[in-house]
Amino acid sequence: MRRTTTSTALLTDMYELTMIEGAMRSGTAQRRSVFEVFTRRLPERRRYGVVAGTARVLDAIEAFRFGPEEIDYLSRAGIVGDETLDFLRDYRFRGSVWGYGEGECFFPGSPVMTVEGTFADAVVLETVILSILNHDCAVAAAASRMTTAAHGRPCLEMGARRTHEEAAVAAARAAVVGGFAGTSVLEAGRSFGIRAIGTAAHSFTLVHDDEEAAFAAQVATMGPGTTLLVDTYDVTRGVERAVAAARAAGGELGAVRLDSGDLVAQAFTVRKQLDDLGATTTRITVTSDLDEYAIAALNAAPVDSYGVGTKLVTGSGHPTAELVYKLVAREGTDGRMHEVAKASTSKVSVGGLKVAGRVPDEDGRAAEELVVSCERFADGLAELGRAGARPLQVELVRDGEIVEEHRGEGALAAAAQRHLQSRAELPYAGWRLSEGEPAIPTRHLDIYPADDADPAAVI
Amino acid sequence: MRRTTTSTALLTDMYELTMIEGAMRSGTAQRRSVFEVFTRRLPERRRYGVVAGTARVLDAIEAFRFGPEEIDYLSRAGIVGDETLDFLRDYRFRGSVWGYGEGECFFPGSPVMTVEGTFADAVVLETVILSILNHDCAVAAAASRMTTAAHGRPCLEMGARRTHEEAAVAAARAAVVGGFAGTSVLEAGRSFGIRAIGTAAHSFTLVHDDEEAAFAAQVATMGPGTTLLVDTYDVTRGVERAVAAARAAGGELGAVRLDSGDLVAQAFTVRKQLDDLGATTTRITVTSDLDEYAIAALNAAPVDSYGVGTKLVTGSGHPTAELVYKLVAREGTDGRMHEVAKASTSKVSVGGLKVAGRVPDEDGRAAEELVVSCERFADGLAELGRAGARPLQVELVRDGEIVEEHRGEGALAAAAQRHLQSRAELPYAGWRLSEGEPAIPTRHLDIYPADDADPAAVI
Repeated sequence: MRRTTTSTALLTDMYELTMIEGAMRSGTAQRRSVFEVFTRRLPERRRYGVVAGTARVLDAIEAFRFGPEEIDYLSRAGIVGDETLDFLRDYRFRGSVWGYGEGECFFPGSPVMTVEGTFADAVVLETVILSILNHDCAVAAAASRMTTAAHGRPCLEMGARRTHEEAAVAAARAAVVGGFAGTSVLEAGRSFGIRAIGTAAHSFTLVHDDEEAAFAAQVATMGPGTTLLVDTYDVTRGVERAVAAARAAGGELGAVRLDSGDLVAQAFTVRKQLDDLGATTTRITVTSDLDEYAIAALNAAPVDSYGVGTKLVTGSGHPTAELVYKLVAREGTDGRMHEVAKASTSKVSVGGLKVAGRVPDEDGRAAEELVVSCERFADGLAELGRAGARPLQVELVRDGEIVEEHRGEGALAAAAQRHLQSRAELPYAGWRLSEGEPAIPTRHLDIYPADDADPAAVI
Repeated sequence: MRRTTTSTALLTDMYELTMIEGAMRSGTAQRRSVFEVFTRRLPERRRYGVVAGTARVLDAIEAFRFGPEEIDYLSRAGIVGDETLDFLRDYRFRGSVWGYGEGECFFPGSPVMTVEGTFADAVVLETVILSILNHDCAVAAAASRMTTAAHGRPCLEMGARRTHEEAAVAAARAAVVGGFAGTSVLEAGRSFGIRAIGTAAHSFTLVHDDEEAAFAAQVATMGPGTTLLVDTYDVTRGVERAVAAARAAGGELGAVRLDSGDLVAQAFTVRKQLDDLGATTTRITVTSDLDEYAIAALNAAPVDSYGVGTKLVTGSGHPTAELVYKLVAREGTDGRMHEVAKASTSKVSVGGLKVAGRVPDEDGRAAEELVVSCERFADGLAELGRAGARPLQVELVRDGEIVEEHRGEGALAAAAQRHLQSRAELPYAGWRLSEGEPAIPTRHLDIYPADDADPAAVI
């Protein structure tokens, strides 16, 4: 059944709650803790990651409340006991969150988001924060590669039907962070103010007795400046009829859409036909199974815009960004913060609160991601200053209060702008679509006082 | 901003609404139409598809209403004009839907779902139906391959953090259709009654001063039958401490969880250690980066259950099922139904209402998918009878009324049961994980009266 509550609290793995229960028992639930979102590696062929979903994380944190419906389920299902239910009933996140600005590029080891609070307050946000960032960052990274490949030609998001219905809305938003100019899905128009686009599918032509009738009806309602889909029957006849339909309504056709066949060859043929018909202002948009490689191949063709579906919303081969959420520091029995990390051989982490900056070379291009493990933010910032690095983290939540500018009106446009700048700053090799190293290397610096190391924690 | 309306109406591509507007203008909006959900091909390495999401489609159709919030957006954004807004304000789906029973296997050309109604009524459901089915079927197909590979050992869904937060809930449900036994994500427990599972992460061990303290706290709250994560520091010491912690609480440990390293080798080592310690009833569960191939490789090892994350919720390489929603028949000017199909070279479709059945061989195994194009359901059913085929379609919505058994309590369990039976019926080759043909071939039979063909429609 579709639920009616807007709480995000149950978009959570059960073990977050059983951990709170255990920690309440052992007295560690109130230990001050620092969790970090980062990736150990970029997916294959990705030279950089793109932060997206920050504003959605803030909304999710605000809505992370255990109301009567949530408590009732947890109680009925016996997930945790009464004492924990009492804690959850009163829960609201009272800690702080820093993160890379939305749209910023990131690399292996970049502290993309940092959550500080009591262990109980911070651990419970793990699942929903990762869900949002892993999805949105994956889509934004794919979008960024596609807009790079498109060299300024507009890219439009049309993938709603190929992904979960709510993921589609988030994907449209993430695509805009990555440089897309519009979306087919109306909820993204309503929720995020993204320009909605679309005219008609093949079924519209087919429900009419013939193509002429379909085109006439569309032009009558959307005007001659509309985009007509010309490949239901025969493309050449379709183009002819499309131009004629617009002219019969007293205008020149806005665009034709090609959705099948060899798009490169067709684009040349159709462009010539349009020009021969005098329809030199009529544009060509293509929409069939595009990804960043197909877009790159189409750059030589007279195409005016790209509609991208499946490959965009599924992250072009990498539907998740592989971000993890790890405890990197926590209060010890001495009341001070100690860096911690898992010691398993295959999943090495770096402990400690991290402060990160991007170090430029003499031409102002990004040369290095400097990540400083430190006890306090100020210590790390001082280190960034010495290296001439641009600080990358912004405060998103301060003592439970959301910093509104990161989700308010304008946050999405600001993220798209930030991404453009951050990507432009990368070395040329970082824009390549092919296999290769991250655009810049990550350097870790640990300025934790050595004698504070917790003997139980392995760095 | 998170929205508060529960309407699904804007989870829709803009062009569905502009098509309605155009069709209202041309007088075709009221033409009786048949849309079909099918796939042209199965993703690489898939021998069969799995229908999942049917119950969610029914919920989405019920909630597909344009309330004041939706109308307000459409009006403000200028998506359609007033006449169309009036139509949408009164919209509820009044047509009928048939579909393969949830859990049923399907093949290229299988009419997975059929939507009949006026053009306007039926076209507008395209996006949300495809979103749900493309996502849920992709996850269910991955789940089915994994449970096949697991040979009866329980598989548990733990991928919420690697996919969109709402997609995670749907993925948990689809995984159960494909044979999974539980989920980590609580919302799936509440929404669908799926058993929630989970105990603790590495952060729980790390927030404590040492592993002993963490294990003692977990056993104190969850009992000695809990699952302890033993690979935060050293696995051998971890196993020792885990067994001791349970015994200190007066019981034998339920299970240990391994989440990193060489799982096959570790499983043997840990099993021997547990047996040497006399903990012969303590089980081993593994959870690190599993997919169907890793599970198959682990079958030789003494593992008791599998926790699967990323690869499950992202469809194990194929995050979308490639289902499309096409107009296959519509009323003509003569008032009769005519089959229609797009004539593009690269995207061939078969027109007409379809009735489908699975034809058995003499041993009762599935031998063929028989798909009959016909004017009326009864004609196709008669053909199935002649071929001895098992009919595959069930009525899901009748004249706008949802058939409750397909989404009510028990629908999910019935779907899981149906999938088990449908998969068991396939030829052995159909269960292989490797590259190959669909498990059974699809045969199309067109019994449309030939002289009814619409001259404008190309078959």
